[in-house]
Amino acid sequence: MSQSKTYAQLTVQDRVLMGPGPSPVAPRVLSAMSLPLYGHLDPEFVKIMDETQNRLRDVFKTQNKLTLAVSGTGSAGMEAVIDNLIEPGDKMLVCVNGVFGERMCDVAGRAGADVIRIDRPYGQVFTPEEVEAAIKAHHPVMVGIVHAETSTGAWQPVDEIARIAHENGALIAIDTVTSLAGVPVEIDGWDIDAVYSGTQKCLSCPPGLAPASFGERAMAKIRARKTKVQSWYLDLTMIEKYWGSDRFYHHTAPISMNYALYEALGIVLEEGLEARHARHMLNHKALAAGIEALGMSYFTQEGFRLPQLNCVNIPDGVDDMTVRRRLLSEWGIEIGGGLGPVKGKAWRIGLMGHGSCPENVRLVLGALETSLRDLGAVKSEGAAVAAADHVYAASKA
Amino acid sequence: MSQSKTYAQLTVQDRVLMGPGPSPVAPRVLSAMSLPLYGHLDPEFVKIMDETQNRLRDVFKTQNKLTLAVSGTGSAGMEAVIDNLIEPGDKMLVCVNGVFGERMCDVAGRAGADVIRIDRPYGQVFTPEEVEAAIKAHHPVMVGIVHAETSTGAWQPVDEIARIAHENGALIAIDTVTSLAGVPVEIDGWDIDAVYSGTQKCLSCPPGLAPASFGERAMAKIRARKTKVQSWYLDLTMIEKYWGSDRFYHHTAPISMNYALYEALGIVLEEGLEARHARHMLNHKALAAGIEALGMSYFTQEGFRLPQLNCVNIPDGVDDMTVRRRLLSEWGIEIGGGLGPVKGKAWRIGLMGHGSCPENVRLVLGALETSLRDLGAVKSEGAAVAAADHVYAASKA
Repeated sequence: MSQSKTYAQLTVQDRVLMGPGPSPVAPRVLSAMSLPLYGHLDPEFVKIMDETQNRLRDVFKTQNKLTLAVSGTGSAGMEAVIDNLIEPGDKMLVCVNGVFGERMCDVAGRAGADVIRIDRPYGQVFTPEEVEAAIKAHHPVMVGIVHAETSTGAWQPVDEIARIAHENGALIAIDTVTSLAGVPVEIDGWDIDAVYSGTQKCLSCPPGLAPASFGERAMAKIRARKTKVQSWYLDLTMIEKYWGSDRFYHHTAPISMNYALYEALGIVLEEGLEARHARHMLNHKALAAGIEALGMSYFTQEGFRLPQLNCVNIPDGVDDMTVRRRLLSEWGIEIGGGLGPVKGKAWRIGLMGHGSCPENVRLVLGALETSLRDLGAVKSEGAAVAAADHVYAASKA
Repeated sequence: MSQSKTYAQLTVQDRVLMGPGPSPVAPRVLSAMSLPLYGHLDPEFVKIMDETQNRLRDVFKTQNKLTLAVSGTGSAGMEAVIDNLIEPGDKMLVCVNGVFGERMCDVAGRAGADVIRIDRPYGQVFTPEEVEAAIKAHHPVMVGIVHAETSTGAWQPVDEIARIAHENGALIAIDTVTSLAGVPVEIDGWDIDAVYSGTQKCLSCPPGLAPASFGERAMAKIRARKTKVQSWYLDLTMIEKYWGSDRFYHHTAPISMNYALYEALGIVLEEGLEARHARHMLNHKALAAGIEALGMSYFTQEGFRLPQLNCVNIPDGVDDMTVRRRLLSEWGIEIGGGLGPVKGKAWRIGLMGHGSCPENVRLVLGALETSLRDLGAVKSEGAAVAAADHVYAASKA
């Protein structure tokens, strides 16, 4: 039979991924993605799943039996947590200080929750007292809060809030999509009942899976449900039989994505969590010094800035897209724009996982300085990179 | 800081995937999986998405604007179709002749549907008259039916049923997880309103995405909804803004999986659908000749057997797992066991996509013959492969 058309093999251009995710993926992880596939019930694949669970427990710092990768991106992890833990009519308190807190409200409402929301301005964090007052006023069955707001770069302390939630009989679920493996996450140490994350941020794995973990209180709530979980695909009462020793078929696992996660977690643990957090912090400080040298300011509340996601105000008179387009076309750098009400007002510069390195800090600072200088917004030449280098030099002293 | 442990790079053993999926993935697709990532809003990635949609339309044989890949495996595709098209209280008629029809009932029930089910024994198909009688008796808003039952290998004609559904004011949604790119699927030709598939069957792409397409009647039903779609993650009213020209951020797309799908679709279209279907049919006939030579029989109703998924009865006195374990350990061959009521009674031999080839037919027939002979269930030596070869020779005559 004649072929009417040929289809050239896919090629891609080089990118330096310095946005809010996906982050750059290490070659070892990309190699794992190209390994031939096992079947999802193959004894060898089951071993990979078991070891992936062990590695996830190490990275989440938990002993939770139900620790797994949900077969979807981070938002599927959010939906899995809420759909399983909420029954129609359950009161859920959601703390909203960014787009992902907003999303939690939306997802919880769709799950039939009686959603109570408290708000802080985008870029700010909640105090334990604010959350405590809302808990005491409304008696929710669960509190949902974002540990690392990807839309604003806000780093929300959650340990004290977890304690208050439990004192008042509520569960606590946290979003660690952008925090896991970039800053400390202590699921058992903080006594968190349910947590979800994403693979494409500080784990430096392609997007497609949502690591998640559920403690005993959460499992008890799920087991006591009077109604079916509304999502079949995300129903943990069935999924746990596949990830558990039964290996009961539920849905076909994304095999290659699981390979990649296995490998990415190995890299994280080989580096060590403490070393990894320290690396993220150092590169953040260097970037921040350069940002300051350019006369720019952070959007996010001081003292609560995620090292891996730097949300900085766009200088007055500078057009968002003009700069971002130039960074992409000239240097291959992707940084993120603002989300929601921050759109056009801030940039989000990611230094996540494999991408948190001095080379990227220097590259983006140099490119920003050049772009802003050509727009007349700054006058300096080399000041930003010099400021960053000063931080690196001081760290070695 | 000291490293406490090293994590060796993942390696895998060779497998010949001849079960119900995942199927073997072509090297070109595996290579695409290991390409560096773009961001999900990168102009170059958007071009890949656009072209993926074009290729999906060509493979589904549709002009439907909303043709996309849902960010989950095939079951997420099922849930996306049902969650978007069904509102609480809507009557949905589900035709059940296998595990995936059962699953449709479960998913529809969770979406609040008033589920009417009609049943045929596993391995059998429905006649248009049976479905027509149920439609006329119950007046459903939608009929759900599985085009290719992965649990039984049954190949259900759906064109006449689609006509009847429309005559009676009902929509029709079909499951083509195992059929797409293996046997003809004509979404516009058959006037199908909604369809979903999976990547890991005859498209020979790793699992992780669910191709889906929605026609105008389906879109009208979605746009007229009075309630929010219960799944945020699968809400097409938002997802279509990301896949549409707005490129409005919804969730981070699984970039690498989209690369793989792009590449896998290119391979399918380069071969040509007709040639691909013919190849699947020829290899099926060769396998069937070998199965017959071994004195084995098909589980599935004659005349309605999927060429890509051969569901054969396990000979009396032969233990399912003894044979499957030997195939895996000695030849690296994975074939599938039975699902649900067929468990332990039948094997499912997949000849899907890249795996539908004479080499695999010969390999599995030889391995089965040896295994069954050693168990005393057959006496022949070489008869199965000879029977298959006879079919290949005749096809060239």
